[in-house]
Amino acid sequence: MSDPPRILPVIQPGAGNGSPPLFDKVAIVGLGLIGGSIALAVRQIWPSALVIGVDRKDVLEKAMVLHAIDVAAEDPVVMAEADLVILAAPVEQNINMLAELDQHVTTPAVVTDVGSTKRTTVEAARPLPSRFTFVGGHPLGGAPRGGIEHARPDLFEKRPWLFTPDGEGASSTLERLCGFASALGAEPHIMAPAEHDRLLALVSHLPQLTASALMHVVGSGAGERGLALTGRGLFDSTRLASSPADIWRDICRSNADAIGDALDLLIDELRVLRQDLDSTTEVDRVFESAGEWRARLAKLRPPRRDP
Amino acid sequence: MSDPPRILPVIQPGAGNGSPPLFDKVAIVGLGLIGGSIALAVRQIWPSALVIGVDRKDVLEKAMVLHAIDVAAEDPVVMAEADLVILAAPVEQNINMLAELDQHVTTPAVVTDVGSTKRTTVEAARPLPSRFTFVGGHPLGGAPRGGIEHARPDLFEKRPWLFTPDGEGASSTLERLCGFASALGAEPHIMAPAEHDRLLALVSHLPQLTASALMHVVGSGAGERGLALTGRGLFDSTRLASSPADIWRDICRSNADAIGDALDLLIDELRVLRQDLDSTTEVDRVFESAGEWRARLAKLRPPRRDP
Repeated sequence: MSDPPRILPVIQPGAGNGSPPLFDKVAIVGLGLIGGSIALAVRQIWPSALVIGVDRKDVLEKAMVLHAIDVAAEDPVVMAEADLVILAAPVEQNINMLAELDQHVTTPAVVTDVGSTKRTTVEAARPLPSRFTFVGGHPLGGAPRGGIEHARPDLFEKRPWLFTPDGEGASSTLERLCGFASALGAEPHIMAPAEHDRLLALVSHLPQLTASALMHVVGSGAGERGLALTGRGLFDSTRLASSPADIWRDICRSNADAIGDALDLLIDELRVLRQDLDSTTEVDRVFESAGEWRARLAKLRPPRRDP
Repeated sequence: MSDPPRILPVIQPGAGNGSPPLFDKVAIVGLGLIGGSIALAVRQIWPSALVIGVDRKDVLEKAMVLHAIDVAAEDPVVMAEADLVILAAPVEQNINMLAELDQHVTTPAVVTDVGSTKRTTVEAARPLPSRFTFVGGHPLGGAPRGGIEHARPDLFEKRPWLFTPDGEGASSTLERLCGFASALGAEPHIMAPAEHDRLLALVSHLPQLTASALMHVVGSGAGERGLALTGRGLFDSTRLASSPADIWRDICRSNADAIGDALDLLIDELRVLRQDLDSTTEVDRVFESAGEWRARLAKLRPPRRDP
């Protein structure tokens, strides 16, 4: 039985405004949630641009059915003439692709990635031949489920898209990529790769590992009988626990030091709470601080109602 | 400026079905989210029952405006003739009230509580004079915000309401209380106090402490600049971090041993992950287990769309 055709949301009307595409041939390696959503958005905003998809055959088929891409191939040679290459696979696959990009892409091109960690990828891009200019990127999508099945052209609307230039160079490339992200509705931010990795370890990687560890501990300890006794609290707290391991394996490896520091902070805090359950002075302190930060978070970024 | 009048949801039509009230005079000590919601539900289901509220003056005023109670007083003597007494304050206040109940309530009465931990309250109820029969209770509400301002008569609909009898006795009281919970739309469950406290430490108390510690660590470490770079993941993971410290202080103290065991399990798991960020064998193991438990949780208890 095949799924019913999906009605895709239309990106903000007039985006691109019929202006010529910022890039004529956009190659996307890895058509998951992020890569697929970029493909859909580019085709809506710049109908004259060519979108080239590289992935496994079954994924390419889904992308073609969604009209996300114009050209599909498993062989990266298909992107020989791309003027923008977006690496949208898990971090270590992106790094492998950087090492062989010279073999596949024959023309000058802007290269970026969408990985959740930046230092290892930025470093791996340094030996690229001079016809390529690389600036790392990280759009913060935040959809509850991955895969091209959940891709949507408006995924980036009003969401931050972080670019992490390697030192001072590549300023015109950076400007073009910020324009690209803005055209997709995102809010471009610029920061150093190390600062990115430190901040994301705290605001993204730590919550993910915590949600997974929590769900594992609670499920194993309480069983289905216990899980049946829960409300929205555990449900929300563990939403991230359905994240796919393959993406997170690479994130953990490529940001191990910063994630380790973040985990140490949390472990220390939990140990303090654990020692203080009877007197609750520390419980009070942590609850007060947490309540204040939570109020600031809610003010900064009210939740989007996802479908 | 006063708030506009709230339109309260109507409980499932025909609940109670015009049948005589299970209790004629229902006294509720503590009109927060749970106590207030019970009051609203009882008045809807059994219009002829008298609902007596005991709390601070400002809370009583709000309860009167909401038409949640018929009789209001700060002095517990107002419940002298109650045939059902529901203790709905934080756990330690409930325990204090049990010690002085004999002074306030002069008639035979069923006594229950709605606290999130059960062993200390059940123990504190043992010396009650024989005209009282006590069975501890714990309705799992799970609304995002506390206070009578957020009370609603349908809060308990299709949610578990746990009763924790102290050994074998009080079976007719237990039956009446299960009927009461069912009339409010809840699903009554029966379990031993120790089993309740162990399970709730895992499925409720641990997620709460984790959310608070996580929000504290992430906020202090990343600041507003970092928090601005987040998506729904951190937002959902830390929803519980706005919970009020006063309720949780009592929960931590009255269930310190079980919460300590649960915290130890999580701390151990986080330390294993921390040591394994480079090889990720353990990351894989935890993600796999967490993904499976999360799928089972979602199947057991799909989230209610709260307003």
